[in-house]
Amino acid sequence: MEFFFTPKSVAVVGASPNPFKGGNFILRNLINRFKGKIYPVNPKYQTMEGLPCYPSVNDIPGNVDMAIIFVPAKQVPQAIEDCIAKGIPGAMIESAGFAEIGADGEKLHRQLLKVKSKSPIRLWGPNCMGLVDAVNNHVFSFMVPEALKDGLIPGHVSLIVQSGMLSGGFLMDIISNRITGINKVCSVGNKIDVDECDLMEYFQKDDQTKVIGLYLESIVDGRRFINLCRKSSKPVVVLKGGKSASGAEAAMSHTASLAGNHRVTEGALAQAGVCEAEDFKQLVDICRCLAIYSKRPAGKGRVAILTASGGAGIVATDFVEHFNLSLAQFSDSTQKALEKLFPHWMPVKNPVDIWPAIEASMGKGIDVFHEALKALLYDKGVDAILMAGFAGNSSVSFNMADIAEKSSVSGKPIFLWLFGLRDAAFQAQTEARLHGVPIFQELGRAVECLSAVLHQKEKTEVSAEKSDALSFRELPKDLLNIIKTAHGPLDEHVSKMILRSGRIPTVEEKITTTLDECLTAADELGYPLVMKGIVLGGIHKTEMGLVQLGISERGSAEKSFTSLMEKMKHKGRVLLQKQIDGKVELIAGMLRDLQFGPCVMLGVGGIMAEVFNQTAFAVAPLSHADALNLMERFPARKLLDGFRGSPPLDRNKFAEILIALGEIGLLYPQIKEIDINPMIVAASGPVAVDATIILD
Amino acid sequence: MEFFFTPKSVAVVGASPNPFKGGNFILRNLINRFKGKIYPVNPKYQTMEGLPCYPSVNDIPGNVDMAIIFVPAKQVPQAIEDCIAKGIPGAMIESAGFAEIGADGEKLHRQLLKVKSKSPIRLWGPNCMGLVDAVNNHVFSFMVPEALKDGLIPGHVSLIVQSGMLSGGFLMDIISNRITGINKVCSVGNKIDVDECDLMEYFQKDDQTKVIGLYLESIVDGRRFINLCRKSSKPVVVLKGGKSASGAEAAMSHTASLAGNHRVTEGALAQAGVCEAEDFKQLVDICRCLAIYSKRPAGKGRVAILTASGGAGIVATDFVEHFNLSLAQFSDSTQKALEKLFPHWMPVKNPVDIWPAIEASMGKGIDVFHEALKALLYDKGVDAILMAGFAGNSSVSFNMADIAEKSSVSGKPIFLWLFGLRDAAFQAQTEARLHGVPIFQELGRAVECLSAVLHQKEKTEVSAEKSDALSFRELPKDLLNIIKTAHGPLDEHVSKMILRSGRIPTVEEKITTTLDECLTAADELGYPLVMKGIVLGGIHKTEMGLVQLGISERGSAEKSFTSLMEKMKHKGRVLLQKQIDGKVELIAGMLRDLQFGPCVMLGVGGIMAEVFNQTAFAVAPLSHADALNLMERFPARKLLDGFRGSPPLDRNKFAEILIALGEIGLLYPQIKEIDINPMIVAASGPVAVDATIILD
Repeated sequence: MEFFFTPKSVAVVGASPNPFKGGNFILRNLINRFKGKIYPVNPKYQTMEGLPCYPSVNDIPGNVDMAIIFVPAKQVPQAIEDCIAKGIPGAMIESAGFAEIGADGEKLHRQLLKVKSKSPIRLWGPNCMGLVDAVNNHVFSFMVPEALKDGLIPGHVSLIVQSGMLSGGFLMDIISNRITGINKVCSVGNKIDVDECDLMEYFQKDDQTKVIGLYLESIVDGRRFINLCRKSSKPVVVLKGGKSASGAEAAMSHTASLAGNHRVTEGALAQAGVCEAEDFKQLVDICRCLAIYSKRPAGKGRVAILTASGGAGIVATDFVEHFNLSLAQFSDSTQKALEKLFPHWMPVKNPVDIWPAIEASMGKGIDVFHEALKALLYDKGVDAILMAGFAGNSSVSFNMADIAEKSSVSGKPIFLWLFGLRDAAFQAQTEARLHGVPIFQELGRAVECLSAVLHQKEKTEVSAEKSDALSFRELPKDLLNIIKTAHGPLDEHVSKMILRSGRIPTVEEKITTTLDECLTAADELGYPLVMKGIVLGGIHKTEMGLVQLGISERGSAEKSFTSLMEKMKHKGRVLLQKQIDGKVELIAGMLRDLQFGPCVMLGVGGIMAEVFNQTAFAVAPLSHADALNLMERFPARKLLDGFRGSPPLDRNKFAEILIALGEIGLLYPQIKEIDINPMIVAASGPVAVDATIILD
Repeated sequence: MEFFFTPKSVAVVGASPNPFKGGNFILRNLINRFKGKIYPVNPKYQTMEGLPCYPSVNDIPGNVDMAIIFVPAKQVPQAIEDCIAKGIPGAMIESAGFAEIGADGEKLHRQLLKVKSKSPIRLWGPNCMGLVDAVNNHVFSFMVPEALKDGLIPGHVSLIVQSGMLSGGFLMDIISNRITGINKVCSVGNKIDVDECDLMEYFQKDDQTKVIGLYLESIVDGRRFINLCRKSSKPVVVLKGGKSASGAEAAMSHTASLAGNHRVTEGALAQAGVCEAEDFKQLVDICRCLAIYSKRPAGKGRVAILTASGGAGIVATDFVEHFNLSLAQFSDSTQKALEKLFPHWMPVKNPVDIWPAIEASMGKGIDVFHEALKALLYDKGVDAILMAGFAGNSSVSFNMADIAEKSSVSGKPIFLWLFGLRDAAFQAQTEARLHGVPIFQELGRAVECLSAVLHQKEKTEVSAEKSDALSFRELPKDLLNIIKTAHGPLDEHVSKMILRSGRIPTVEEKITTTLDECLTAADELGYPLVMKGIVLGGIHKTEMGLVQLGISERGSAEKSFTSLMEKMKHKGRVLLQKQIDGKVELIAGMLRDLQFGPCVMLGVGGIMAEVFNQTAFAVAPLSHADALNLMERFPARKLLDGFRGSPPLDRNKFAEILIALGEIGLLYPQIKEIDINPMIVAASGPVAVDATIILD
């Protein structure tokens, strides 16, 4: 991949002398910045922008490390053949007109893949804006050269963007707002070959990249992507387009990509320690903060708020709670240090409204804001500081160099919210960037980004732990045979036999076909009992009237058997189960996601499942920590803690079940879905009471 | 109140010749703008800023319509006495040092109230920044005159802000960002007399005000406020500070105000058709859009997205769903009109990615963006349009005048998201404001504000309906006597007798003290039965083992009676109830909120109450529409729709119960709380199975 990033020579196939065309922009962007050799390629010209121009890459005298392709889509396959013939290791195809335009483009896409299959050449794009590298000063893109006149700001945020327009827009917005330094912006387009995973891998080794931000509409190889995120030593932030059902449809038409079930994606990203963004500028905001604090600061997310406006303190406090942080309690010595700054009547507490102290100290030459900041930083109960102030015409102005130094010495993040005059705010923002101080125009965004910084290690801790090796779960031959030969849903009894072999606790049960068998089984199991009629394809037993609960003695058992058999027209069997008592009913399951493969699901079970549609997902295989984290991410996790006299769930025991579900999914690709509903939390632990396995 | 807004003469008590002091800022702001008479008052000077200066307001020769007070807090009561003596109808006290500073200030607050009590004078503040009126060009405030040099932008948004700093900040931010016109900004401070309700009333009559935005830390008179909001013909947007438990604590120390239970506040605001904001700039953003579209546009929130970036279209689609809007389906004729603009290979659908059409039409002199916009506006299935584009160096530029006209002619809102170069974005923003086009820097915010505009009438419809008159619910004398004389919790049986008299359906039950009574009662009620032991103060019957379910015949009844009596040491009574079957258990209740008075609550009941802490509130009295709206706002409303064979709840019947709960709260102020838990949804309708009434 290195040839894309640090080539010594670049060919521009489709270079143009017309100053209003993309083929000219690419060339001029190279001439303006690139230090290596530049070869314009266009059979119509002999020179271009003062450089010799070649009819084909094969006519270029020297080695070519990388070619930028900007000819009409139909000519691209030939251009790539030429690159292969020339031995060029990488081509960045910036032409559009491929899979994103429908059938005709898909044909070209396949043609291109065929051409590529003969060679180790790497293809970037097509339908992309290429690469901008602010640190190496490379613009391998048809961005208008004039748009870059303000100058790139080198920094530590690298972006991977699956949308050409947006990658350009991101860059222009960032450059003109001078808000953050950028390392590389990679526009990946249709990802015919080079994808987000390749770039993620490259960025892991790139010293100058401290944080990786991605805008993705599809994830090409979900399992590889998630593994890269898990192993990433650098924070990863993802904005996934196509979350809603209609958004996913839009995504498919846009870059011919698969948006997937966002709940699964959300679970996979959380499991891998990825921070999820939801809007474009917010993605950049989170990235710029994580570039400043790229290791999780110590502490527990206890925030001190220091403000010149009481109202800002109050609303900031609301946001602190909203974003899962807490308000710091000050130590006695902090309290005393602050009280010295304040008039006697002012009760000092968090949030600290500094205004009365500023008034009290006016003319005394004391910088109370910074004195207060010092006191807060000393406090061991304070993990981070949020300051709010006004830009312009204010007695309060922030000394960015001092704030940056104080944060660096203490190791505690200091975030600023600045409200007020546009020009003063812009000036403060520029100065803050130079010193590495996170500054915001919106209070909520400031707290949101602080939360992303303070919560990053919790995620990394989970993601760092390796998955346990698969513990082989051998199935008896008859069950194995069913899995290999049957299709569609298996009946409850068989499904649970498979789960039991996979070491998942299931309810004690017996299958019977005659009344005699039934009564013997009933006596053996003991009362109370549940009886169910099992017919082929009968997965809606309750609705079919094939479930009888609370059978308390032999007489009822006999009656139930007869009645069930009649309902099934004597074509089914009757399943007897011990009745399991427990107030908590869960769903545990496995599904095979198109992007992420086998995933484990935890949800609210029983009749509440549809009302409280609360679920959490994780990609298999699950480590023990992954399984615990899945329970922690389960929105209805209060169900697991025991209530009204129910004992809490044994989370370690339940983790084994979740791990097993994932492993069964991995071991038996014929299994499409497993649905345990309900999984009742009994006194002895969780028990699968009903279950369906669906085969491919 | 008119004297505060359009006085003919203003006295400045505490005027100062020192150009760095607030008392001078106030004076200069008047001199710079105010057309009426200005009287500086300060016993130390004879003239000030070229005007005669008076030792006291009583020395002023003419009438004074309004006095701005800016002397130290201790001198304020005397200054107000002087104003009263002079017959000044209103004083704006901008001095700080009152209730916000603790005990000393509270004393002054009380002193001020005492002075005021003798006179009809209206007091504004203290501890506030007064009033800025951009339409009348009044700055009755100690804002630094230089901060206003960019000029006020007259407009239709009026703000009421309970935070001096923020009201100044709001204004400076708005002015320098040229983002919206402003009518009036009222900083209300400690609200010793003039409060948000007085100002709301004034704004109702103020022709120039089209939308009212409030930042509040406390609501002085919740019931009056909510009534004003309900009746408001203009959209009301509220940012309530102090939502979290710790935020509320901060609020109390800041302006000595009561933050209240935010869930109740949230319910009250929603019921009254108020749009709730959560951040400062967001509040202004929502207000500026509602000022442009101050009546709800027709339609059902079906949005067409028109963008030059596929990625923006995809993420916009996600936000459309997130903010409860939907993607419009295009009609055949729209489809055809759009297809004409696009190359043949491009499938046209919503979101419309216009880029291929722009490329296809280049050099042909067709403004495809506006052609497409026209097609979308013609479509009856499109209620609003969201456009996304780039600011600067782009082939796409928006013609704001044309957009504004198209929106006005079609009656359909057109919202813009602009991404890109800072200066170009600012220029576009300024132009958009001049033409009344809502424009945004963040995509999510654009959709959020569009949602606020498109959902406004739904709220107004609810709020417009008058509450039904109280239907008198007469209690028998013995129950009335209990309410009047008892204290604390009433037992279940008595509580339900009261509810039954209030026409709330309760379970059929009988209270017994002897075994004979019990068995007779059991036979009369019929089996299965529930039996409960009733002891004084025993509100945790389940935990005390005093509930026995599923009593199916006489023998069990006898056993249960004996066992319950033993557990109660023969000091209690035994309550027999018919066992009510139903899968859905709700909580319905009444509580007396400190800010809003009697409120009705709806929640998830039974054992799931603590796990799924989902509730909704409304202020009593409830109209029928209010009650239906309360059910609609209930987060677990799916419970009401019937599922797995349970019939749906009869919402009209349940509305009567909710209305009755509110009326009981209003009629009997001795009742502090009513808690019906569970309210079981039986086949016959909802039935109160257990209930507790708590008296003061």
